[in-house]
Amino acid sequence: MQRYFLTTKQTLTQPFDLDQQTAHHLVTVLRAEVGTQAEFVQPDQQAYLGHVSLIQGNQAQVVLDQRLAKSSEMPVKLIIACGLPKGEKTQLIVQKATELGVFKIIFFAAKRSVARWPLAKRNRKLARLQQIAQSAAEQSHRNLIPCVTYVDSLAALLSETSTKTSRIVAWEESAKQNEQSQLATTFGNLRPNDSLLTIFGPEGGLTVDEVSQMQQHQVQPTGLGPRILRTETAPLYLLAAASYYFELEN
Amino acid sequence: MQRYFLTTKQTLTQPFDLDQQTAHHLVTVLRAEVGTQAEFVQPDQQAYLGHVSLIQGNQAQVVLDQRLAKSSEMPVKLIIACGLPKGEKTQLIVQKATELGVFKIIFFAAKRSVARWPLAKRNRKLARLQQIAQSAAEQSHRNLIPCVTYVDSLAALLSETSTKTSRIVAWEESAKQNEQSQLATTFGNLRPNDSLLTIFGPEGGLTVDEVSQMQQHQVQPTGLGPRILRTETAPLYLLAAASYYFELEN
Repeated sequence: MQRYFLTTKQTLTQPFDLDQQTAHHLVTVLRAEVGTQAEFVQPDQQAYLGHVSLIQGNQAQVVLDQRLAKSSEMPVKLIIACGLPKGEKTQLIVQKATELGVFKIIFFAAKRSVARWPLAKRNRKLARLQQIAQSAAEQSHRNLIPCVTYVDSLAALLSETSTKTSRIVAWEESAKQNEQSQLATTFGNLRPNDSLLTIFGPEGGLTVDEVSQMQQHQVQPTGLGPRILRTETAPLYLLAAASYYFELEN
Repeated sequence: MQRYFLTTKQTLTQPFDLDQQTAHHLVTVLRAEVGTQAEFVQPDQQAYLGHVSLIQGNQAQVVLDQRLAKSSEMPVKLIIACGLPKGEKTQLIVQKATELGVFKIIFFAAKRSVARWPLAKRNRKLARLQQIAQSAAEQSHRNLIPCVTYVDSLAALLSETSTKTSRIVAWEESAKQNEQSQLATTFGNLRPNDSLLTIFGPEGGLTVDEVSQMQQHQVQPTGLGPRILRTETAPLYLLAAASYYFELEN
C-alpha cells in the first residue's frame, strides 16, 4: 500500500485536503478513486490508515480511519557522516540508507573529497537529496524522513555531533589490521533511543591525520569485515548489520 | 594495493608474462614501473604479493614473491538468486554483492520480471556482468570471482540448487507478519563451508504461487526487518547481515 507523509497534524475521521504533490501522485499517477486506501504518517511519526473521500479536479480529500500501531523505525538512532563522494553516489547513499533505516545523513568535505559544494549550490543539492529521502521513506514504509545535511569540514562535523552517545569511524586500516570486535562491542553498548554516529571516508579513504583528529575526539576506529568496501557500500553495510543486530537477532 | 586474478597457476620466484588486459591496466592505467608491487590471486584462490620485473612495450612480466596468508572469503558460501530486475539494477547487484562477499549470483525469470533474457542475448549479458564481478572482486580484495549465471524459470532454479544445505526466500509478507527469527536461526545452523541459497523477488515481488512452490521444496520464508526493501537492496542487506554475523560477531 502507498504511504505518504503529512506536513500538518490531522484529526481522525475529519476530512482534509491533500497537498498538491501528494494529490497528484495519488490521483493521477496511481489512479486512486473515492474509497482507495493509503497510509499517512503524521508529523509526530504516527502512521494511519486512511481513504480518499472526495476527488475534485486536481484536488483530493482524505479521511484518516485508524492508527497503525506498528513502527518501522530502528530502536536506536543511526547517523551516518559520509566524506562527500563524487556525483550520483550521494543519491545512491541517501536512497539506500533511507530504506535501511538511517536516522540522519551528514555529508562532509573530507581531505580527499574531489567534489565540494559551494555555498551557492548547497541548498539546491540538499533539497534534491531531501526529496530522494522522502520518496525512499514513503516507498520503504518509514515513520520518519531522515534529514540530509552538509558540513564543510571534519572539525565542524566533530563539534556538531559531540553530544552523541557513541561515535565510530569505519577505517580500512582497521579492517586490514583484522579489527573485528569494535562494531559488535559498540552495538552491545547502545540502549533504546541512543544515537550512534558512524563516519565514512570518500573515494580514496580518510587520511591518517583525519583519523587521529577523530581519535582525539574519542571516535573509535572500526573494521567492517575483511573486504575493502567502496565509499557508498560501507554505510549500507553498517546499517544492514545494525538492523540485523537490533531488529532480528536481539 | 592493486589486486589481479591470474588464469593460470604460476610458481613463486619464476617470472611470467601478464595477460594483455592486466598488463594494460597495471602499466598504462596505473603507471607501474619495474619494482611496483601488486597482489595476484592464483586459480586455487591463494593470494600472493608480487612485483613487476620487466616492462617491454605493452607487455609486462611479474614475479610472485610471497604468499599472503589472509583470505577475505566468508566462512560460508552465500548464493543469491534474484528475480531478474530491470535494466542497470543487475549491474548494481553484481558489483555490490561481490564487494559484500557473495559466492555465486543467479538471476532467474520470475513471474513479475518485466525483463527477459532471450537466448541470443544471454551470453553477452552474462559476460558483461562477469566482467563487473571480476573488477569488483579485484577492488574489494576478494580471493575468488563470484560466478554469475541465469536460469529461465523458478523450477529450474529449485532443481539446480536442490543439494544446497539451506534455502530461504526473502519475502515481504514475512516481514509484514513480523517474522523476525528465521534469519538468525538459519545463520546459527550453518557450519564452515556450508552453502546458503537466498531467493529474492524482482520489482513487484514474488507471487503467492511462487512462494508456495518454494515452500514445497523446503525453502523457508524469511523476513529482513520491518522496512520494505527494493529488489536490489534486499540481497545487499542479507550479505551485510551475514558478514556481521560470521565475520565480526562470532
